[in-house]
Amino acid sequence: MGMSKGMDLKRIGNQTVVFTNPPVILSSYSVVGPKEGEGPLRKTFSKVWQDQLHGEKSWEVAESKMLQESMQGALDQAGIPKEQIDYMLAGDLLNQIISSNFAARQMALPFIGLYGACSTMALSMAVGSMLIDGGFARNVLVGVSSHHDTAERQFRSPTEQGTQRAMSAQWTVTGAGSLILGRSGVGPRITSATLGRVVDYAETDVSNMGSAMAPAVADTILNHLTDLQRQPSDYDLIASGDLGAVGLALAGEVLKKSGTDMGAGFTDCGVMIYDASQDVHAGASGCGCSAVVFAGDIMQRIKAGELKRFLLVGSGALHSSTSALQGESIPSIGHAVVIEA
Amino acid sequence: MGMSKGMDLKRIGNQTVVFTNPPVILSSYSVVGPKEGEGPLRKTFSKVWQDQLHGEKSWEVAESKMLQESMQGALDQAGIPKEQIDYMLAGDLLNQIISSNFAARQMALPFIGLYGACSTMALSMAVGSMLIDGGFARNVLVGVSSHHDTAERQFRSPTEQGTQRAMSAQWTVTGAGSLILGRSGVGPRITSATLGRVVDYAETDVSNMGSAMAPAVADTILNHLTDLQRQPSDYDLIASGDLGAVGLALAGEVLKKSGTDMGAGFTDCGVMIYDASQDVHAGASGCGCSAVVFAGDIMQRIKAGELKRFLLVGSGALHSSTSALQGESIPSIGHAVVIEA
Repeated sequence: MGMSKGMDLKRIGNQTVVFTNPPVILSSYSVVGPKEGEGPLRKTFSKVWQDQLHGEKSWEVAESKMLQESMQGALDQAGIPKEQIDYMLAGDLLNQIISSNFAARQMALPFIGLYGACSTMALSMAVGSMLIDGGFARNVLVGVSSHHDTAERQFRSPTEQGTQRAMSAQWTVTGAGSLILGRSGVGPRITSATLGRVVDYAETDVSNMGSAMAPAVADTILNHLTDLQRQPSDYDLIASGDLGAVGLALAGEVLKKSGTDMGAGFTDCGVMIYDASQDVHAGASGCGCSAVVFAGDIMQRIKAGELKRFLLVGSGALHSSTSALQGESIPSIGHAVVIEA
Repeated sequence: MGMSKGMDLKRIGNQTVVFTNPPVILSSYSVVGPKEGEGPLRKTFSKVWQDQLHGEKSWEVAESKMLQESMQGALDQAGIPKEQIDYMLAGDLLNQIISSNFAARQMALPFIGLYGACSTMALSMAVGSMLIDGGFARNVLVGVSSHHDTAERQFRSPTEQGTQRAMSAQWTVTGAGSLILGRSGVGPRITSATLGRVVDYAETDVSNMGSAMAPAVADTILNHLTDLQRQPSDYDLIASGDLGAVGLALAGEVLKKSGTDMGAGFTDCGVMIYDASQDVHAGASGCGCSAVVFAGDIMQRIKAGELKRFLLVGSGALHSSTSALQGESIPSIGHAVVIEA
């Protein structure tokens, strides 16, 4: 293993922390919209909404309700009283992360708001694990959400306009995924985390965020593997979330040029959640995408013994509509967490 | 002291954590705009810009540059090479926290993006301290920013419009403050932290955010004092940031009705930074306000021995323009950190 600097430091190499008492994933709950409920992972979600509004007066309120529903589901599944949850960590794509803020009002737990765009699930799992392993919490609730229609009208065009999408564009997932992490109990464990640094290769096309994020994902994977002296084959599966088809191919290429062949065990949550018939072009994106794919499909495969060691690399495009209109490129980031059966 | 649940848990009472090896504030650096540079705290800031653009092409780019300048200042002052900074924690008011994201691109450090509105400085100090005390980092860079003109046009009206402001409104500070926190070294220490829960008393007036936030600040102060079995007089000074004059009076009243008389040692960063001649109405707000007041004036008074134990209670109004236009009230939060000489 790499060098550890300082006596009781839990760091390995430059960017990775290894948990002394790896936090347990005590429960996982996912809620998705109708389109996600028609996709190939339909059977892995805890709940599928029949429409995008779900009886609420706006898509924004619906998104926050979806996040609350996934959080309550994770709480109920874990069977832990709310009084024993010491922190709630959450984030989403909306300006000032309102979906999370209103969910935090409902949960009434000490709240840490995070922003890492589509990487927020991995970020919240990493920070939540540090709070538990560091002795600051018994249990932590983490959850993130995205909603196709709230994201579409905030980041792109009025939804009524029917703007034609580029083939490299990704479809924002309507979904929310939540986990309860605990210091003791039975379940898969989060064993290490590699938080990423911002990487920006000057991509300015907001209809091609996969390309913008690919180098950041590659950077984090390379640092993670170097820090832990591992190879891609040390994982049963590595999934980025969410590069889409364009970004996934590009990340594989960047890694290959850096001397790391990812092999067949490298996929992307944004590629997994829809199938070719669903007309989403390059795949899916949104905080909710990697959250519901992980909370559903991946957790089931870990529990079934199919995946013994899994690497989730959340990927975030950290621009805003304003920065894009001002001609800035898209700063991107990748955050990695290791989950072991 | 209150009960600590679990063997090595660093929690006291319901919401407070007490650090085993309290992180040291190794350096603090503040950069402000011209208006702040003309106020009563002018001599306490590290740097005053002569205008709001500072030669950049937009206020948004200027805000991020201001944050970068404060971060570089804190790094230089601490004299710690960037390779020994394990995480950068930052946040700001702009949509998708772009000021912080672009600063993170410049710093190229593993990055945790936070959103707590004007409470983000206290939040980042609390989380940063947990990462250090938990053994996950040697040193951490924390910093936040706000800019009057970027906030004004994002949250309120086009700045050219000259809209008349309500008397209860607060003026967003143009400023950025950064700290280096370390596990060893000389300086004031962060000894405990109480992260808040969202409190919402149904205030919907975005021109009266002090009133919206006052109950959240009161809630956190009460929980903090109860958890640690302390009284306000156990602190040389307690400063919220930023309630402004309206909110500060209201918080004092709420606390008094709950049986806690705050006495003369309760103030607010948003009251301190401007004087009556500066026409700011109820005072100041913005992530940068409590950051530059703490990094400047408060740090100087701690180092001079005037303040031996100080409580900063960051306050955040967690709405967005969209949630306000949709008729939602303002969910608010208070995060507290204790700094001791």
